[in-house]
Amino acid sequence: MTRFASFVDLRAACLDLPEGHTEVATEVARREARLTKPPGSLGRLEEAVAWLSLWQGRNPPGLDRIEILVFAGNHGVTAQSVSAYPSEVTVQMVANFTAGGAAINQLAREAGAGLRVVALSLDKPTADFTQAPAMTEAEFLEAVSTGYDDVSDDADLVVLGEMGIGNTTTAAALAGALFGGGACFAGLGTGVDDDGLARKRTAIETALARHADVLDDPLRTAAALGGRELAAILGACLAARHKRTPVLIDGMVSTASVAPLQALRADALDHTLSGHMSAEAGHRLLLQELGLKPLLDLGMRLGEGSGAAVAVLVLRAALACHTGMATFEEAHVSDKET
Amino acid sequence: MTRFASFVDLRAACLDLPEGHTEVATEVARREARLTKPPGSLGRLEEAVAWLSLWQGRNPPGLDRIEILVFAGNHGVTAQSVSAYPSEVTVQMVANFTAGGAAINQLAREAGAGLRVVALSLDKPTADFTQAPAMTEAEFLEAVSTGYDDVSDDADLVVLGEMGIGNTTTAAALAGALFGGGACFAGLGTGVDDDGLARKRTAIETALARHADVLDDPLRTAAALGGRELAAILGACLAARHKRTPVLIDGMVSTASVAPLQALRADALDHTLSGHMSAEAGHRLLLQELGLKPLLDLGMRLGEGSGAAVAVLVLRAALACHTGMATFEEAHVSDKET
Repeated sequence: MTRFASFVDLRAACLDLPEGHTEVATEVARREARLTKPPGSLGRLEEAVAWLSLWQGRNPPGLDRIEILVFAGNHGVTAQSVSAYPSEVTVQMVANFTAGGAAINQLAREAGAGLRVVALSLDKPTADFTQAPAMTEAEFLEAVSTGYDDVSDDADLVVLGEMGIGNTTTAAALAGALFGGGACFAGLGTGVDDDGLARKRTAIETALARHADVLDDPLRTAAALGGRELAAILGACLAARHKRTPVLIDGMVSTASVAPLQALRADALDHTLSGHMSAEAGHRLLLQELGLKPLLDLGMRLGEGSGAAVAVLVLRAALACHTGMATFEEAHVSDKET
Repeated sequence: MTRFASFVDLRAACLDLPEGHTEVATEVARREARLTKPPGSLGRLEEAVAWLSLWQGRNPPGLDRIEILVFAGNHGVTAQSVSAYPSEVTVQMVANFTAGGAAINQLAREAGAGLRVVALSLDKPTADFTQAPAMTEAEFLEAVSTGYDDVSDDADLVVLGEMGIGNTTTAAALAGALFGGGACFAGLGTGVDDDGLARKRTAIETALARHADVLDDPLRTAAALGGRELAAILGACLAARHKRTPVLIDGMVSTASVAPLQALRADALDHTLSGHMSAEAGHRLLLQELGLKPLLDLGMRLGEGSGAAVAVLVLRAALACHTGMATFEEAHVSDKET
């Protein structure tokens, strides 16, 4: 059962977006201004509280139900030897997630977040996009719909991560298609050598040339150059917006996945926050193109939602300050001399 | 009872420093390399684990007993109208810490850390350093000794924070004395206006000229231009090194406090990690001078140890990954193709 019946149908859903709860955000900002600290001195912690309240529409905002979704997919472009690891690692890592042995398992527990792993037809990789569109319209819409339906109605925050051998090549191709610059978004991924990077660049340039006729359409581009896990992340990010639920985006692949939404509508990512700047070279450039400023820059480049999961800890710290601090009046602290 | 009897005595203690536990760190690195992720893909999380193990000498490292020390002092230089808040806020904020209403109370709880607040003769501010040395040798050594003795023997990590109206002026003066550049380390502090910033700069330049004769001696400089809470932080950082306990440094004031240690011995801060880059303008410059790369850059500028307390959350995340993740062998995940 596919929720979106066609590119046209999905495009309409991408253009029909609600705004945040500005009145609640104003109430929350009023309390923030009275807490025992110089105004603005908690920096991005204060911004995070404002953002959570704007999209949750709750005063105070809460982080009781955090949903980390990790989508996994396989990529035909691995035939071009673009990864340092074999394709079977995708399914092996999904098993590792299920067994609790991956980084994201530890980070989800540390963040007090629920973790759901969604494997998308791992035995049926996308087509090698140097030869053909990665997905048909039907395959793409099925993956988008899966992601869309995986977002719970009652989540306070959704974190979008991924796993898929070959998917930094996919993400770089998609970013290059949306923003130009050819293969400039390609990086070392899991750790390819110089020859591997050259193969990535060639694959991306070949794909951009082959699919030139669809590059003016962000959704067709995502189908031709993307992957199932990227499509599912796009769907989940869209669902969260329709539910007015804040979203933390993770690294290179997670960010490239949602970029088509912004290409369709400039304010489509207003409900999202970038959790972490990946060490993957193209991510900095991609964030600049999207106008996103990540909370963290810890040199991580693992995917799995791992950077965003660490950023959840910062959101928890922000919320703890907002809800727990005394006001100037309560603490009998003298306010700023004016 | 002052632990250090003279500048000469303290200087000797500052030069006599143990190294880390390199054998334990090597063992820990061996496990880190086998975890189910591309090598290095957890970036600074991996570095943090290596650093904790090097200084704790434990495999695996632990974060069971984290000690946040917040030292508070008052500053005679406030007579020069260098702060947006009146001096009595220092004692009011200490009461707020005790009552649990400040940012650091919430962040310490979130970090699972103990919090100790040490008020240093708040009713007896240091001298206005534009007129006289801030502290006598005896006053300085008493404050250093207090900080030294406040570090527990069994802490896994020490976090060094402060509170003191006027102390960004003090910190900038101390940094300017140690590294040159006059008043270039001065910033807006709690939020002074342009006139306030001009007064800070003038006060710093006046002080640097007045105390020019001691500026070749880092400890005499810290006495003449520092403050009691800065001296206590220096003492606590030194004690932690003697105990081989890792230390998280906080923002502008916390960093300036420990700078004299590095001026005395180049590797004196190897057991420390910078938790957060403050939005206070001079901090970036000061970190560059010291060769420190902060974990976080969240635009905070509150002091109290608040930025470093958020960084504790990153350390916890790092440790959770290191101790909880499966190895390639355990998870039957294929390693990198070589």
